Amino acid sequence: MITITAFDHSPDGGKGLARDTRVRWALEEVGLPYQVRGVTFEALKQPAHMALQPFGQIPTFEEDGLVLFETGSIILHLAQKHPGLLPQDPNARARAMSWMFASVNTIEPPILDMATARLFERDKPWAEARMPLVVERLKKPLTQLSNWLADSEWLEGTFTAGDLMMVHVILRLKPSGFLNEFPSLAAYAARGEARPAYQKAYAAQLEFNTRKI
Amino acid sequence: MITITAFDHSPDGGKGLARDTRVRWALEEVGLPYQVRGVTFEALKQPAHMALQPFGQIPTFEEDGLVLFETGSIILHLAQKHPGLLPQDPNARARAMSWMFASVNTIEPPILDMATARLFERDKPWAEARMPLVVERLKKPLTQLSNWLADSEWLEGTFTAGDLMMVHVILRLKPSGFLNEFPSLAAYAARGEARPAYQKAYAAQLEFNTRKI
Repeated sequence: MITITAFDHSPDGGKGLARDTRVRWALEEVGLPYQVRGVTFEALKQPAHMALQPFGQIPTFEEDGLVLFETGSIILHLAQKHPGLLPQDPNARARAMSWMFASVNTIEPPILDMATARLFERDKPWAEARMPLVVERLKKPLTQLSNWLADSEWLEGTFTAGDLMMVHVILRLKPSGFLNEFPSLAAYAARGEARPAYQKAYAAQLEFNTRKI
Repeated sequence: MITITAFDHSPDGGKGLARDTRVRWALEEVGLPYQVRGVTFEALKQPAHMALQPFGQIPTFEEDGLVLFETGSIILHLAQKHPGLLPQDPNARARAMSWMFASVNTIEPPILDMATARLFERDKPWAEARMPLVVERLKKPLTQLSNWLADSEWLEGTFTAGDLMMVHVILRLKPSGFLNEFPSLAAYAARGEARPAYQKAYAAQLEFNTRKI
């Protein structure tokens, strides 16, 4: 049985933004059952968890002695072992992997930079003056992503693990309304959210994060 | 024949920090010949290059009609097709991929954040007051990486594409002397630099970036 870790209670209270949702979604796309172990914020930095996740984050993935971390790696592992997340054609598979890396290396960092500026530097004297720089650095790759997507349904024709990763990464911009500044990306994210596997994953994380313990 | 793109002249003048070096290194590890097409800063954002790299960056990888971008994806593609960058054991291969993603998603972003603060915000009124926050956000994952590595030679026993990516990512901290604050990481990076394949890749990018055109 696959076990993943998640925040014992996600800081978003169940909006599905924590990274375990990404892995839950991939598991639903390929149709694999899994169990979830909650990790408290205190336990994240303890040796037991750091042995599984060297940077004290969630999620982790455990199955038959294999331990993986980083959502890109976990989802790639699932996608390579089980049908549903990568095309058959070798070149198309490789292209999907380019988008998986782009999601976490090119799009996610400026999104997290904006979150950091908003959450952790909002009381700093430079908060207001610096924000336009942060926003500009985010708008640039989002505009490029939007230009690439144009009126396509998915990044490379058919839904792949690259779309799964990219949609979940940009969904972080939805609660603030920022995603609506890029209508084609908002529509793209909505197509991802509409997938039955996403719906199941979202419901599961909501139930987990609102459970009584 | 494989063709990669690189800056027509790298901003570092040939220190090997631009991302094409990472791909050159991987190509040397697996023993494949390649050619390099220089792209000027002006051409980076033109349609011809954006069709290959949707975010107007380098490097790209072209071979027999396949076009890839994102170094992680390019190196993963090479590593899966050719021996030399991934172990045989399936679980060990998956672990190496966790480190590939960690290099670009967990370690590279705070390194680039520090570079951005130093290069593009150094004249801002908040430059001095904000720098300690930026440094702290970088020291945390570097300390965790250093703790994981401890006195091991490589991240998972034997050299993999995960080490190649991680070493090249942290080498960006070498010119400023920052890397020396983490002696085990400095030694780890030096082990990477000492590999014949890295030496060849470094020499090739130096020659390319100092050529007369």
